[in-house]
Amino acid sequence: MVQVTLVQIDNYGPWTVTPEPRREADLQALQAELYADLSRAFGSHGGTAFYNRFDNVVAVTDGTTEEDHRAIQRGIGNRYPVTVSMAVASHERPRHAVERATEMMQREGGAQDAARVEALAYDGGVHGDVQVAHFDVEDVTTQYTDRVDAFEATLSVQSAYTELSRLMWREHDSPTFFVGGDNYVSLTPGLAEQEFEGVLDAVEAATDVRLRVGVGESTSPERAGLSAKQGLEHSRERGVAVEFVRSPA
Amino acid sequence: MVQVTLVQIDNYGPWTVTPEPRREADLQALQAELYADLSRAFGSHGGTAFYNRFDNVVAVTDGTTEEDHRAIQRGIGNRYPVTVSMAVASHERPRHAVERATEMMQREGGAQDAARVEALAYDGGVHGDVQVAHFDVEDVTTQYTDRVDAFEATLSVQSAYTELSRLMWREHDSPTFFVGGDNYVSLTPGLAEQEFEGVLDAVEAATDVRLRVGVGESTSPERAGLSAKQGLEHSRERGVAVEFVRSPA
Amino acid sequence: MVQVTLVQIDNYGPWTVTPEPRREADLQALQAELYADLSRAFGSHGGTAFYNRFDNVVAVTDGTTEEDHRAIQRGIGNRYPVTVSMAVASHERPRHAVERATEMMQREGGAQDAARVEALAYDGGVHGDVQVAHFDVEDVTTQYTDRVDAFEATLSVQSAYTELSRLMWREHDSPTFFVGGDNYVSLTPGLAEQEFEGVLDAVEAATDVRLRVGVGESTSPERAGLSAKQGLEHSRERGVAVEFVRSPA
Amino acid sequence: MVQVTLVQIDNYGPWTVTPEPRREADLQALQAELYADLSRAFGSHGGTAFYNRFDNVVAVTDGTTEEDHRAIQRGIGNRYPVTVSMAVASHERPRHAVERATEMMQREGGAQDAARVEALAYDGGVHGDVQVAHFDVEDVTTQYTDRVDAFEATLSVQSAYTELSRLMWREHDSPTFFVGGDNYVSLTPGLAEQEFEGVLDAVEAATDVRLRVGVGESTSPERAGLSAKQGLEHSRERGVAVEFVRSPA
Repeated sequence: MVQVTLVQIDNYGPWTVTPEPRREADLQALQAELYADLSRAFGSHGGTAFYNRFDNVVAVTDGTTEEDHRAIQRGIGNRYPVTVSMAVASHERPRHAVERATEMMQREGGAQDAARVEALAYDGGVHGDVQVAHFDVEDVTTQYTDRVDAFEATLSVQSAYTELSRLMWREHDSPTFFVGGDNYVSLTPGLAEQEFEGVLDAVEAATDVRLRVGVGESTSPERAGLSAKQGLEHSRERGVAVEFVRSPA
Repeated sequence: MVQVTLVQIDNYGPWTVTPEPRREADLQALQAELYADLSRAFGSHGGTAFYNRFDNVVAVTDGTTEEDHRAIQRGIGNRYPVTVSMAVASHERPRHAVERATEMMQREGGAQDAARVEALAYDGGVHGDVQVAHFDVEDVTTQYTDRVDAFEATLSVQSAYTELSRLMWREHDSPTFFVGGDNYVSLTPGLAEQEFEGVLDAVEAATDVRLRVGVGESTSPERAGLSAKQGLEHSRERGVAVEFVRSPA
Repeated sequence: MVQVTLVQIDNYGPWTVTPEPRREADLQALQAELYADLSRAFGSHGGTAFYNRFDNVVAVTDGTTEEDHRAIQRGIGNRYPVTVSMAVASHERPRHAVERATEMMQREGGAQDAARVEALAYDGGVHGDVQVAHFDVEDVTTQYTDRVDAFEATLSVQSAYTELSRLMWREHDSPTFFVGGDNYVSLTPGLAEQEFEGVLDAVEAATDVRLRVGVGESTSPERAGLSAKQGLEHSRERGVAVEFVRSPA
Repeated sequence: MVQVTLVQIDNYGPWTVTPEPRREADLQALQAELYADLSRAFGSHGGTAFYNRFDNVVAVTDGTTEEDHRAIQRGIGNRYPVTVSMAVASHERPRHAVERATEMMQREGGAQDAARVEALAYDGGVHGDVQVAHFDVEDVTTQYTDRVDAFEATLSVQSAYTELSRLMWREHDSPTFFVGGDNYVSLTPGLAEQEFEGVLDAVEAATDVRLRVGVGESTSPERAGLSAKQGLEHSRERGVAVEFVRSPA
């Protein structure tokens, strides 16, 4: 059971070119600041925000109430030249929570609908066990970062990420997010070790990039995420592909 | 002729798990803040930073001197718990500038080499005409954002980006960067209209995603970037696939 | 009854000059970022942080638990080159809460004691009614900002603030904070209208600056603060010196 | 000769209460972020911004051109819900530069004049030798921070600052800024050692607080500021009240 929040900047596309195209360096700084802000805001309630596409952030937000969301939304409106709308949904399977939040958001109005301003659609509140998977690339530094040029490294990481995301979403109902470097995080619905092994093999077959994964389980997404990272550290030390860590309640 | 700066966080991977894995929400906020900071810093000298992989930022920095780089680097060291190393190279072809900067960075030490702290390798300084291409997806809002679920939209955008990046890099010596939403920016070595058309067709053939592109040309990367956005606006209004804008000196 | 948190940067003075004096522009940006961060972090739990002396922030934090404090503290440590210690105390009278927090902090070690790292002394948790007073200068724009030079305006505001702070602290057990422009906020222990009138008269007698005040009362500091601002708006419209607003629970 | 920039948020007072009073925690974060941003922006051109009253920032900006100012102003407009106006003036005596910038700003419209939006009045450009004085309190940690309560410490620091500012402004044509903790910085017009000694004695006579000062001289405000800090370090080590450092060109 996971609560997911979809955050969308209201009418952002038109704003970036009104009255004329705004400087890219300013837009990049704005988007990154806004994302950092959402990371801190959801983080202060034990959640985690993923930048996804920057104008469209997905966060896992168990424990963040409707009132908390309203305060975060109002805070953004008070500190940025743009506003955000939010949709919050809970579901056993992370994919369905994302899909439900997306439907709720679309019912409030399109991303370029000037009438949608600070909409908040909330249907969250039920929590339970969370499973988080943290992937990275085996030996990325020696194999990629320090050997080929930086851009080819990015291309390889990119391909593996696209393949991983597609598999996790379509076959395992799991949204996957890039979190920097060669790291990706999936919200997973209680998958088993052999399912992760199958995914790692399929990504390698398709892209020649070998991944590892740590899997964390807990009653809170933050602790599940930390356990997943510990799992990844253990898998590195022990030379195994998949490592589970269950954090105490 | 373009000057490119590669920025790499020193020994970042080990830091994120020392003494134990740090909270993901904090790392996301840190990375996004650091990137926002680099965007503003290079932006204040007329350049633009691209987040690339977050721990590995590439910036186009014509007009930013070695001393400016040193000041930006020292400022990061004074305000963050991590330091950054930088390598700066100029070349006629953007790809070669990135490759040269990468080699220079690697000569300073690996990304996880604890001895590499605030290295600065500078071989820039020569400037000239810059060509920037700004791509987006035709009708992304009606076709993707407001119709399918947010995550499938991300997957489509992701595939198109991976394909576009690969083509631009391998066949046109052009690094390409995701700049949020469905927008990508390439640094291009004076490509012609039919070359862009070939790329758009190839991306569509491979991924079913139809892109448009505005191409800006100027003596400064900032003005070239703004011209590229204006070109994209014009292409949208006029219903054409490729639109060039040459900004006055 | 109010819960107050004292936040102190650990060993900050020595850090600013090690290995040699750091650039002032960097230190100013660091301090302001850190303060903005604390504002958002306590704000996300319904509290408010006051910058006080930058290296020594005081926050009213009813509703922020010991665990929340620990998470905020750890987040700072993960995103800044410095760490902070915190002391949290509750008391009927705001002054005594500040004094108690100060004693608790000092027991953890001095501000330049290298051994004090991320100390957290917590003795909060009891809440109740909160009274907040929001002061500003009558007609500051026409009388000061747009007439005399900016610096003389600052000097006048400064004098009034020093006088107000001294009176509120010594005679009314109320800490007072500058919140920008010509605005000051006091945490007050249920003062009556005539007590505020006495303070306004005394400040005017000493400094020739005439203040107004809105007083908010609520069970939460955030709502009390908003009510205080509404009171100030009302006092401006109605031309009175003191205006109370009690927010519904 | 010093170039000074006055930055004022446009129509800020009315904005903070429209449509109703905004949450103080959000305003504090906004103001601090905006100030941090100005610190970085002017800092990237070798200048330093002082927060003054938050809505009214004064910066020393030798070397920041009119075009740089325009870019900083536009960047603020692109990333914040508010805009800023700027006035830039150069003068031999820092006080007269501030006064001239203030007059220029007022001619553009009042601080609450809704018609003044992103005004930029520029009359800078001439540079020369800069003298900067950096003051702090002798033994502040042992005498104040770790002994009396935090708020009394603030009151003492506050009184000394008000007295110092008044003397420096009225008798020595020098604007003085609080930079955090117990530190103040003055822009001074080539004062001599005995003039500083006179100021320190007068502040002590009026407030019982004993200050020290380091004085830096250079052709750039940044280097002058760093020299002033080195001077302060030397004065601490050598137990003297005033220490001059002249940095090489």
